[in-house]
Amino acid sequence: MARLSLSDTDKQARDWFHRTTTDLGCKVHTDAMGNQFAVRPGLKNDQPPTYAGSHLDTQPSGGRYDGILGVTAAVEMLKVLNDNWVETAYPVGVVNWTNEEGARFPMSMVASGVWSGDIPLERAHNLKSVIPANDTATMKTELERIGYLGDVACSWKASPMAAHFELHIEQGPILEAESRRVGVVQGVQSYKWFTVTVRGRDSHTGATSFQHRADALLTASKMILASHKIASKHSALASTGILTLKPGSTNTVPGFVQFSLDIRAPQDETVNAVEADCKDAFSALAAGENVLDINTGCAPSSRTCSVDWRTDFVSPATHFHDDCVACVQAAGADLCGSGDVNGKDVGAWGKLMTSGAGHDSVYANKRCPASMIFVPCRDGVSHNPAEYSSPEACADGANVLLGAVLRFDKLRAERGH
Amino acid sequence: MARLSLSDTDKQARDWFHRTTTDLGCKVHTDAMGNQFAVRPGLKNDQPPTYAGSHLDTQPSGGRYDGILGVTAAVEMLKVLNDNWVETAYPVGVVNWTNEEGARFPMSMVASGVWSGDIPLERAHNLKSVIPANDTATMKTELERIGYLGDVACSWKASPMAAHFELHIEQGPILEAESRRVGVVQGVQSYKWFTVTVRGRDSHTGATSFQHRADALLTASKMILASHKIASKHSALASTGILTLKPGSTNTVPGFVQFSLDIRAPQDETVNAVEADCKDAFSALAAGENVLDINTGCAPSSRTCSVDWRTDFVSPATHFHDDCVACVQAAGADLCGSGDVNGKDVGAWGKLMTSGAGHDSVYANKRCPASMIFVPCRDGVSHNPAEYSSPEACADGANVLLGAVLRFDKLRAERGH
Repeated sequence: MARLSLSDTDKQARDWFHRTTTDLGCKVHTDAMGNQFAVRPGLKNDQPPTYAGSHLDTQPSGGRYDGILGVTAAVEMLKVLNDNWVETAYPVGVVNWTNEEGARFPMSMVASGVWSGDIPLERAHNLKSVIPANDTATMKTELERIGYLGDVACSWKASPMAAHFELHIEQGPILEAESRRVGVVQGVQSYKWFTVTVRGRDSHTGATSFQHRADALLTASKMILASHKIASKHSALASTGILTLKPGSTNTVPGFVQFSLDIRAPQDETVNAVEADCKDAFSALAAGENVLDINTGCAPSSRTCSVDWRTDFVSPATHFHDDCVACVQAAGADLCGSGDVNGKDVGAWGKLMTSGAGHDSVYANKRCPASMIFVPCRDGVSHNPAEYSSPEACADGANVLLGAVLRFDKLRAERGH
Repeated sequence: MARLSLSDTDKQARDWFHRTTTDLGCKVHTDAMGNQFAVRPGLKNDQPPTYAGSHLDTQPSGGRYDGILGVTAAVEMLKVLNDNWVETAYPVGVVNWTNEEGARFPMSMVASGVWSGDIPLERAHNLKSVIPANDTATMKTELERIGYLGDVACSWKASPMAAHFELHIEQGPILEAESRRVGVVQGVQSYKWFTVTVRGRDSHTGATSFQHRADALLTASKMILASHKIASKHSALASTGILTLKPGSTNTVPGFVQFSLDIRAPQDETVNAVEADCKDAFSALAAGENVLDINTGCAPSSRTCSVDWRTDFVSPATHFHDDCVACVQAAGADLCGSGDVNGKDVGAWGKLMTSGAGHDSVYANKRCPASMIFVPCRDGVSHNPAEYSSPEACADGANVLLGAVLRFDKLRAERGH
């Protein structure tokens, strides 16, 4: 699946969304970032809708579930409400957020970020397409071109939400591995992205003894291993996805290595602790000291490397709203037959989870109560054509989404707002 | 210094070589690979000359000593012989080997390899230029273009040598670090080049726990560290100069890593032992087992990686000829004042060494006795504009080269051939 944001195929999907939700009796509007909001009236329409939704764009070589499942399940929710003549206390909405992937315009969750007030509209409008490489389009010119530059301001004030529920595939292997049907998502992990630069000294692989080397790649390898050991100790994650080196010749010891480091944990403090431990360990490894037994058995060297850190991105932990989490949990229990919704353990059918990846719900949660529902995907594979969730898993997710929205509507009715 | 093989500047240096050696009374001929042979007659000219020489080409961004020093010192030798009216028993020659670096035409030591019969002439002639990238020239067309496609066959039979002595900068840090003036080179290390491929599984850095990962880069990092520990144990060298990975995104655990592995040691058996130990260790690390304490402290994983090896190049150990090594050692002792030339220790002035890098002397040694002379270079830096050897070090090398050639000539005179 390749449906890059604001492409011709994205326009087709948007047209489908507009037509289908209108046909289902919704009033639909589009904001200045192309976010689409479809609202089915309730009994009291002077209050904001309870929303379900996600995104319709994909990675350049993506799957058929990431994002799309959350929108189509929300549209299915509208059908079920209509088919069963359900009257909700408050309006119910479906949202399609623009460019969640950040694949074509390189800032993920950018349109929900503008909506929440975290990203300036002009910065988002001026983002340049990176796919295809020779494209000169910006978000604004593409929104205009496909007719989705809406006349409503992109803002939580102009399009308020009483709550935001998002169904998504897990994009990880845990639910499948533990045979759980539904993930009740309590929040999104804290994460920080760094670029680490190790400088040593180019030298001839044949003519330079270990003692006289400052091998930037050997040192970087030790650092990657150290980051893994440190993260393991803290029950956190540390990952390197990019590594480049110079000069890049079989018979030259590299004098320069740069690598990415992605540290994640449910709590900000844990991420900071892993960062601090890694900084200590990397400095010691660059200086040739033994850390975590990594240098044991290595030939000592009289030369050392230097190490520099650059912080590229900081995303603090998101804690979803208790009310929304409780609605998801109760809806899961309703569907799967376990009544224990009070304890920490939700029962064999489900799992309380922290999302490893970012989602539009992170920005939504800044302006209204939010939570997410995860369903298992095969082998945890995502952002790949092999991405797959079974029809049963998709149905579970859609049912829990419907149940959570109805429960939240009921909660609002009880509270009177 | 950029004097790529068979470029216009290489032609200038070749013209200088031809003119200068001719003016010094030599008879000069060029063979079908552009190798230049300048011969100063001796008393008995029906026997092959005793040669000194090296190469005039450089890396694209090379230094002012690598190769050139060995040719200019040999030309200086001719001048000294002339100035002092020295009559050698046998002729003395100076050779300039073509494209030793393999930088422009990607096969190092190719012209001495054709001369020795190890590389077919046609294969060498058809090598395509890789610098500049848009060049369509081959070795043969460039030899023709600059007028150095000689009419003498490129062969040890057509241009026989009684011996081959080569002065070269060390290209390593040992002589400088130990304050030795001269390296007496006994041979060239055995080495093997491999490409190692590690296959794991792409996965999301945030959504995939360590337990569910098959992290090809973490595994490759452990392998690089293991290769270093294993080589240290065997007093050998193992180096990785190239590493590439896919897909290459900060938030994706790489499922594919490929890296070069360069294993070297003075003896073939040692290289083979390091290779065998690395193969065992890499397989165990890919399977998640603990090897050399590298996995200790890592979170266990239920997924494994696979590892494949490809052998790219095998260069067995070269052992230089005892007569030539003895001549170099005696000439060093003459120059530096220590008389102990019989023991293993040559004295504080010098060091018996094994060259880590390949040289034309490797191929020459297959068809005649050979040895090399190393002089210190600053910080061991080579293949770089910062390459430097002091005037004193260059003079030491030139003096030992002259002395070794004269001693070998004397040895021949004593033996009568």
